[in-house]
Amino acid sequence: MSETSRVQCAALRSKIMSAEDAAALIPSGVNVGMSGFTGSGYPKAVPSALAKRIMDANLHGKKFKIGVWTGASTAPDLDGALAMVDGVELRLPYQSDPTCRKRINAGEMEYIDIHLSHVAQFVWSGFLGKLDYAVVEVAGILDDGRLIPSSSVGNNKTWLEQADKVILEVNAWQNPQLEGMHDIYYGTQLPPNRRPIPLVRVQDRIGDPYLRCDASKIVGIVETASPDRNSTFSEPDENSRRIAGFILEFFEHEVRKGRLPPGLLPLQSGVGNIANAVMAELDQGPFENLTAYTEVLQDGMLQMLKSEKLACASATAFSLSSAALVELNSDLARYRDRIILRPQEISNHPELIRRLGVIAMNGVIEGDIYGNMNSTHVMGTQIMNGIGGSGDFARNAYLSIFMTPSQAKDGAISCIVPMASHVDHTEHDVQIFVTEQGLADLRGLSPKQRARTIIENCAHPHFRPALMDYFKRALAHSPGKQTPHLLEEAFSWHLRYQQTGAM
Amino acid sequence: MSETSRVQCAALRSKIMSAEDAAALIPSGVNVGMSGFTGSGYPKAVPSALAKRIMDANLHGKKFKIGVWTGASTAPDLDGALAMVDGVELRLPYQSDPTCRKRINAGEMEYIDIHLSHVAQFVWSGFLGKLDYAVVEVAGILDDGRLIPSSSVGNNKTWLEQADKVILEVNAWQNPQLEGMHDIYYGTQLPPNRRPIPLVRVQDRIGDPYLRCDASKIVGIVETASPDRNSTFSEPDENSRRIAGFILEFFEHEVRKGRLPPGLLPLQSGVGNIANAVMAELDQGPFENLTAYTEVLQDGMLQMLKSEKLACASATAFSLSSAALVELNSDLARYRDRIILRPQEISNHPELIRRLGVIAMNGVIEGDIYGNMNSTHVMGTQIMNGIGGSGDFARNAYLSIFMTPSQAKDGAISCIVPMASHVDHTEHDVQIFVTEQGLADLRGLSPKQRARTIIENCAHPHFRPALMDYFKRALAHSPGKQTPHLLEEAFSWHLRYQQTGAM
Repeated sequence: MSETSRVQCAALRSKIMSAEDAAALIPSGVNVGMSGFTGSGYPKAVPSALAKRIMDANLHGKKFKIGVWTGASTAPDLDGALAMVDGVELRLPYQSDPTCRKRINAGEMEYIDIHLSHVAQFVWSGFLGKLDYAVVEVAGILDDGRLIPSSSVGNNKTWLEQADKVILEVNAWQNPQLEGMHDIYYGTQLPPNRRPIPLVRVQDRIGDPYLRCDASKIVGIVETASPDRNSTFSEPDENSRRIAGFILEFFEHEVRKGRLPPGLLPLQSGVGNIANAVMAELDQGPFENLTAYTEVLQDGMLQMLKSEKLACASATAFSLSSAALVELNSDLARYRDRIILRPQEISNHPELIRRLGVIAMNGVIEGDIYGNMNSTHVMGTQIMNGIGGSGDFARNAYLSIFMTPSQAKDGAISCIVPMASHVDHTEHDVQIFVTEQGLADLRGLSPKQRARTIIENCAHPHFRPALMDYFKRALAHSPGKQTPHLLEEAFSWHLRYQQTGAM
Repeated sequence: MSETSRVQCAALRSKIMSAEDAAALIPSGVNVGMSGFTGSGYPKAVPSALAKRIMDANLHGKKFKIGVWTGASTAPDLDGALAMVDGVELRLPYQSDPTCRKRINAGEMEYIDIHLSHVAQFVWSGFLGKLDYAVVEVAGILDDGRLIPSSSVGNNKTWLEQADKVILEVNAWQNPQLEGMHDIYYGTQLPPNRRPIPLVRVQDRIGDPYLRCDASKIVGIVETASPDRNSTFSEPDENSRRIAGFILEFFEHEVRKGRLPPGLLPLQSGVGNIANAVMAELDQGPFENLTAYTEVLQDGMLQMLKSEKLACASATAFSLSSAALVELNSDLARYRDRIILRPQEISNHPELIRRLGVIAMNGVIEGDIYGNMNSTHVMGTQIMNGIGGSGDFARNAYLSIFMTPSQAKDGAISCIVPMASHVDHTEHDVQIFVTEQGLADLRGLSPKQRARTIIENCAHPHFRPALMDYFKRALAHSPGKQTPHLLEEAFSWHLRYQQTGAM
């Protein structure tokens, strides 16, 4: 037994095998719960070994498909590889892989776009059918069999509990100092036995630092030493900085008005460059002792932890660039007490989001003049990634902010449209809408008032007159004037884009 | 001092005045928080006196408008009277009055359609501006000034706390035995000071039976003796009975599968005949010792309390027919320990709905083939009533069920359409969709699978082929095949109805 092995449990060492042998345990037709959340903590070896096995089956004319359930997005080695060989029957709850997306939009793969907080309870309740296998990356196995979670928690607790059979990947690349950073809450129940979740501050630890797994279910252990996929990070562009600036101005205004406390409230921030730009602004801004109760910890938040603008951050996963990952791993002791990684049913829990009074900030593909938001479908039909946690946060937040540049594709697309071509967040769940043009505070406004505010404050000047023209004609001719629309041309902007390449 | 007066507080008796005098205290331009929820517990005298005053002002060429905030819908004496004289600048969060609706849809009144659980916290946070006056009906005033709540609680706690000036209507018609039925939770806070709400079972009482009000804010007390508006109740029609039958079958199936406990989970049921039909079915069904955690207590639930199928019910208001009201009032002692009326921020609280595992059952105007639900807008532009609490419940429920007859207007309208003309509940928040044709279990289905299931199980046979034709053509020609649509004809059914009177 290697002294450096991270499989410290003697009883489990006999189950160490190659990725190929582990992949060979998984038959066609099963549902597999895989670890992984925004490119962190996904299994590095078994999925691609399984993809090769599926390819071989295909070459022999055999159908081999599985259902793939994860925390959220993974990496080319998982989603990409399995999608490439057409090995995925059904995928849930979130993906962002180009090959995977292409299959879904070609109608070759079923995809269920589901609130991230719903997944665990739907599986516990049996709503999604049987979970046959779990393939979960961990950072180590203690001598008593407890598992040190990896760089994401996601749905791992649920997969380990619910799956009939478990394959573990023990990744020696993961920083050993991750041990102790996690907070795995084992107090969840199904109704009617649910009790209050005893978390009242972001920094509260309410669970264990380790995952548990019935050893008799573990059918294979694969040792790996591979890095997480890095998230791309580019310096915030001008539009992102302007959006961030408007949000900071708004926060200062709200604090002055007494509608936000001086240290704000726990921040949730979606993924991407606008989110990072908001963090960069906050890092330079006047607010101190901030907290984050969010899904993923991106570069911007890490920088704020470093500068101590951010006192602590609760998330379910890291999503860092390679530079940030080096920074984190080289100095983890500096951060580890102020970062808590939780299961996604806790990081995204409606009860906790409401109680903490989270300020939710999420990007969208498009929003309409009445404040309905499309987070998922390009031109109404093509999935981009999925709703992720944006609905969990937006619906129960203290303040729900949605952000987008006012234009896309070099001005060919207006991100403010007459009617959203798909609705993921309804008018009832959107309080603030912001683009690089400005911020629309929709609180206390009727739909017509919202339309004027969004068009005037958020739309790009190039599209503003046409939006106002639509609104005014709708106001004049719409059968109902609560939410005036001309249904015959509500999607004319999208259709024009499809036909001419520009809205 | 009359021995029979319900104003037992000597210090407050000097504030007793006529409705006209009380109405004269309210100036133009203010926001007024009024009691009232589904026709229960609304002020009976001051609003119509105020409407007459507004009419007089109008006749003298003066503009006189107020903002009207309530619990939910009220009655002709309130919404009807104020809308008739064009006295409402802005209305929130829910209405169902024909005159009011007409004004809104004519563009003459601003209306904000807001989740019922959001109202109180938005007002506490100052998101909706200043609340100037409260006009609140109570069933009595104790000698120490505490208030016996009336037949609805709604937002009354918030109005009494937040308004600068308070006018009370003390209604001697309300049953004195209402005293003790209410549970007014005073433990809510704004973040970052929120704590878990200590309710773990439907029957838990976590607050006081009385409302409080700073006596110095009370500027007028009006004594009334007028009945609540009755809700219409008709015997369930064939379609409603069929819908109820499918839901009962589904519950039995879920209990057999172990996905629901034998006593089900707390039931939430929207208003209307389908809701009453479901209760009538349950009253005849095999389930015992049921509970309800809901907004309004309708005839169907009262019958179930009578038969003891329903062990207890928590709501924020009654909404009873005249016959049921007579039954309740003649025998209140029989019911009073098993009915709890709470503030609407508690009856509809996300934390509690999620914890209790509520089964949400709500009606819709239309649903689309992908499971997006329109609860509010006829043909996408005309408001019907509002979202009410359906979003509060659907979003955080254990199971979210939406119900509608498959057709409306004698078959001129299909309630299943290619694309919902307004979305109040997204595909992510809908688990079960049911019409008199059948039930679609959407759990674990991708959009395309949902479309086939909804068309086959829920659509009326008259419209089924055309829906399937749309779906198949969309599947063939849609640019993206996650949610196939032909945007150029997505609303063709609605437009055809507008042009020809039939879809």
